[in-house]
Amino acid sequence: MLRQKITPPEVASARPSSKGKLRIIPLGGLGEVGRNMTVLEYEGKIIIIDMGLGFPELDMPGIDFTIPNTKYLEDKKDKILGIFFTHGHYDHIGAVPYLIARIGNPPLFASPLTAAIIKKRQIDFPNSPKLNLKSIKEDDVIKVAPFEVSFFHVNHNIPDDYAIKVETPIGTIIYTSDFKFDPHPVNDKPTDLEQLKRFGDKGVLMLMEDSTGAEEEGHSTSEQTIKDNLEIIFKQSKGRIIAATFGSLLNRVQQLITLSEAYNRKVIIQGFTMKSNVEICKELGYIKSEKNTLIEAKEMHNYPDSRLTVIGTGAQGESNAFLMRYANGEHKEVQLKRGDTIIFSSSVVPGNERSVQALKDNLYKRGAHVFHYKMMDIHASGHGEREDLREMLRLLRPKFLMPTHGYLSMMARHAELGEEVLKMTKDDIALAENGQIVELTQDKITVTKNFVDSNIIMVDGLGVGDVSEIVLRDRQLMSADGMFVIIAVVDSQTGKVKGEPDIISRGFIYMKESKDLLYQTRKKIKETITKTVIPGTDINWPYIRNSLRDKIGKFLYVKTRRRPMILPVIVEI
Amino acid sequence: MLRQKITPPEVASARPSSKGKLRIIPLGGLGEVGRNMTVLEYEGKIIIIDMGLGFPELDMPGIDFTIPNTKYLEDKKDKILGIFFTHGHYDHIGAVPYLIARIGNPPLFASPLTAAIIKKRQIDFPNSPKLNLKSIKEDDVIKVAPFEVSFFHVNHNIPDDYAIKVETPIGTIIYTSDFKFDPHPVNDKPTDLEQLKRFGDKGVLMLMEDSTGAEEEGHSTSEQTIKDNLEIIFKQSKGRIIAATFGSLLNRVQQLITLSEAYNRKVIIQGFTMKSNVEICKELGYIKSEKNTLIEAKEMHNYPDSRLTVIGTGAQGESNAFLMRYANGEHKEVQLKRGDTIIFSSSVVPGNERSVQALKDNLYKRGAHVFHYKMMDIHASGHGEREDLREMLRLLRPKFLMPTHGYLSMMARHAELGEEVLKMTKDDIALAENGQIVELTQDKITVTKNFVDSNIIMVDGLGVGDVSEIVLRDRQLMSADGMFVIIAVVDSQTGKVKGEPDIISRGFIYMKESKDLLYQTRKKIKETITKTVIPGTDINWPYIRNSLRDKIGKFLYVKTRRRPMILPVIVEI
Repeated sequence: MLRQKITPPEVASARPSSKGKLRIIPLGGLGEVGRNMTVLEYEGKIIIIDMGLGFPELDMPGIDFTIPNTKYLEDKKDKILGIFFTHGHYDHIGAVPYLIARIGNPPLFASPLTAAIIKKRQIDFPNSPKLNLKSIKEDDVIKVAPFEVSFFHVNHNIPDDYAIKVETPIGTIIYTSDFKFDPHPVNDKPTDLEQLKRFGDKGVLMLMEDSTGAEEEGHSTSEQTIKDNLEIIFKQSKGRIIAATFGSLLNRVQQLITLSEAYNRKVIIQGFTMKSNVEICKELGYIKSEKNTLIEAKEMHNYPDSRLTVIGTGAQGESNAFLMRYANGEHKEVQLKRGDTIIFSSSVVPGNERSVQALKDNLYKRGAHVFHYKMMDIHASGHGEREDLREMLRLLRPKFLMPTHGYLSMMARHAELGEEVLKMTKDDIALAENGQIVELTQDKITVTKNFVDSNIIMVDGLGVGDVSEIVLRDRQLMSADGMFVIIAVVDSQTGKVKGEPDIISRGFIYMKESKDLLYQTRKKIKETITKTVIPGTDINWPYIRNSLRDKIGKFLYVKTRRRPMILPVIVEI
Repeated sequence: MLRQKITPPEVASARPSSKGKLRIIPLGGLGEVGRNMTVLEYEGKIIIIDMGLGFPELDMPGIDFTIPNTKYLEDKKDKILGIFFTHGHYDHIGAVPYLIARIGNPPLFASPLTAAIIKKRQIDFPNSPKLNLKSIKEDDVIKVAPFEVSFFHVNHNIPDDYAIKVETPIGTIIYTSDFKFDPHPVNDKPTDLEQLKRFGDKGVLMLMEDSTGAEEEGHSTSEQTIKDNLEIIFKQSKGRIIAATFGSLLNRVQQLITLSEAYNRKVIIQGFTMKSNVEICKELGYIKSEKNTLIEAKEMHNYPDSRLTVIGTGAQGESNAFLMRYANGEHKEVQLKRGDTIIFSSSVVPGNERSVQALKDNLYKRGAHVFHYKMMDIHASGHGEREDLREMLRLLRPKFLMPTHGYLSMMARHAELGEEVLKMTKDDIALAENGQIVELTQDKITVTKNFVDSNIIMVDGLGVGDVSEIVLRDRQLMSADGMFVIIAVVDSQTGKVKGEPDIISRGFIYMKESKDLLYQTRKKIKETITKTVIPGTDINWPYIRNSLRDKIGKFLYVKTRRRPMILPVIVEI
């Protein structure tokens, strides 16, 4: 029960403290969805919240993912008091194995499930140090002077999702991380609104809040609705149910298991991350199922189709995930059958629309029944929408607001809510960018003009940060128009081309059907070299190469309107 | 007024005719959005509906667009009686300059605006033949025995959008093309529902209907709503209004011009296609504006910001379009100012989400007010949604339904409506693929197992159809991990490598920072060649090259977990 009516914002109570400033440095997660990591620094002492992976942008072909830039922290290792994790999703924990050694392997604090996921992942990185990982409970208060950090429970779509409260010498900071308000969460208690109200009563200096849903009007859909809709599908499905979602959307997996039990279906989990996550959750008791519900794929033939549910990864159209292999008939144990009902229980991550469309079409083509989120509410975002954000603001009544997590457009629309709900002025709201230093005092929040090094770090295979802009640009060029290598053997005495120049081209034209063009190009190459060499002078090889790049590039453009990358090789003999 | 109540479906009246079969061959537009082209063939006589461009798929890097495959038609030139166009959008007319010569330059029939757009475009293709283009009016009946073709007006988002009615010896075929029902269209009359009802009364054998909106529940939004919402923005904007939409969304351009006049603003049109389209429309009277409303960009400085609207292209985040150049400060005449209000009056084409997001964020970052379709209804699709499709089915009561235009998932959901509204069986509905021959008689529609050649034709620069799967695969490989050319000069007598092998690599690693890896790789190259050559035998160069590809590929993978394309060049001397 609320102890008092929610009143308009009041000045946050200021704790006795030094007159220092709190620095907030977002190292990722602003102006993007993912790669969350935030530094809080007070008089040289540092705590960090989350350390996540990001998805490569469109102009990063071949890149596996991105991680935050920790340059700023690397000479402050001994000042880092700890890293605090909000939940076990990779965009919040995934950069740990790459970065932890760089910042001196500080202690990590996380809920039991989050800690277990971090720990399990570390096994794949034998060169990353043994972690100093502490599993904390909701009531724990971690004192790392001058900070006092505690956690409180919010709803998301993975169990053990915490928001973080940081007591600093200048006041209370609340970092929501991913959250939504759900009166009927899966296998979980709703957020304790009274507790939030009490925080508000005591005074919150600054709220750092998830912006991901800030462009969506209304309340996020309750998981109860999702359950009801999934149940409609379970009721009517006579064959197997194949449900795909994110490997980390563990609350949805729980829903599907519970429904399968209600409809007398055994459950097969497919997909590496999902399997691994479900195992961890089962061990810790976060996923509840009857003893014999989960079976292995090889046991499927013991049951009629009407008694089987397969839950797997791949709802984003990822090429190697379960659902794609199933749809393409490439999965060893689960192949598409007429009569299968396929449920896409996830939204489409921006950028994946066309892969998901192709996957859906492939399923339709092969005669499956498909249900996806456009047809009914069988997926709810884990992120609060505008009404949730308004509610959080009303409960906490922070003096200052710093929108986090999301594209700039989301953050900007989030900022509007601070003005609307709490009558904040623009000066009370910090719209910052990654790397930008934000300074907070009891009276003022300042988005400074100062940035720490925040160049994005790209991971590609074993390489961390070794792919440069030049490498990316070359990949883009070659993916558009291919490349064209010219190999000419030249007599270093006379400057004459010996024999015919060799040409190797890929991704430009189909060589076998372009004999005439290649013939003309060879002629042009010989001409160019001959014209460029001035008899009786030293041969200027770089000049010849440039000349070839230029002349042959133009020649091919005129002939084809394509600009392959031209690479001249001159072998002197 | 409807002459009689709409009754449940009745058997379509069959006209007196031969007992022949009508062949329907979709050459594009099924299982995709765009590239619309359909062949109707009766006893060897052929008519064609539309001839459009498609967008390249994700796995077609560097491709400009796709066009239908006309192989089937190329030995039937003298049988083609005409091509009938529904409207002037490029996904319906854009392939004309590429394909018209291949099929014998048959007569083209189009509404005045569509004809003008086709004609204007042809200017850019001096090698394409002079078109035999006939501008037709709504009441015209074109008799091309055994077909009689007429047009009727439907609403879309470009003026002069026609659906097509084809009388064939076996019955009436109606081809809606892109349409929606809108009681309040822009500058246009609503669709004549009574006329549709009369067609239904006379009997429609088969309806070929637009599936693009078939996954959206409800009625498409009326342009009246869009106008009302745009007006809210016009009312509150004090600075310039910068409105971006598709260059071909001419009804939206009209709305924005009309509103600008109401709010005393001059209008500047930006973007090549939009400018060209607006000029054509003005000439033909399809866009109405007062005499001095449209001004040139260079006259902008004569007016205060509050009296200016710029309408331009680029709402999809296209890199060279007006809005992107404006946002990046690269536009000569229109630069972003604080106080500008930017309206994204278009949906996001699937695949463009992340470019649009980046563009929006760039605008937010630079302090603009942004309005987009998620915030309010300031864009309506030109495609009927499920309620529109139901209405069309109720009015026309076709005996058979063939969903066209759209991904398979859209077509499949469209098919459900035939069952729902007209109690069709699955046998009454033809779900076909591009190239698949559909046969229609008075009693039966059959999706045969026979396909005509329907390999997609890709256009890349001047090349039409010359980019093969191999070229595309190479582009994809190089875009992911780059390429690695090895040049070794080998003594053909001894098989020994002379000097150090040369390496050229792009898109793989940053060469300057990978000296050690390159050193090791050179060593490995020399080793590999030495080991492969068997002294005293003829040197097997292809074997050596394969060996290098294999060994160096594996070596680099172990070192980097990347798989660049390896291209060994051996120069014998």
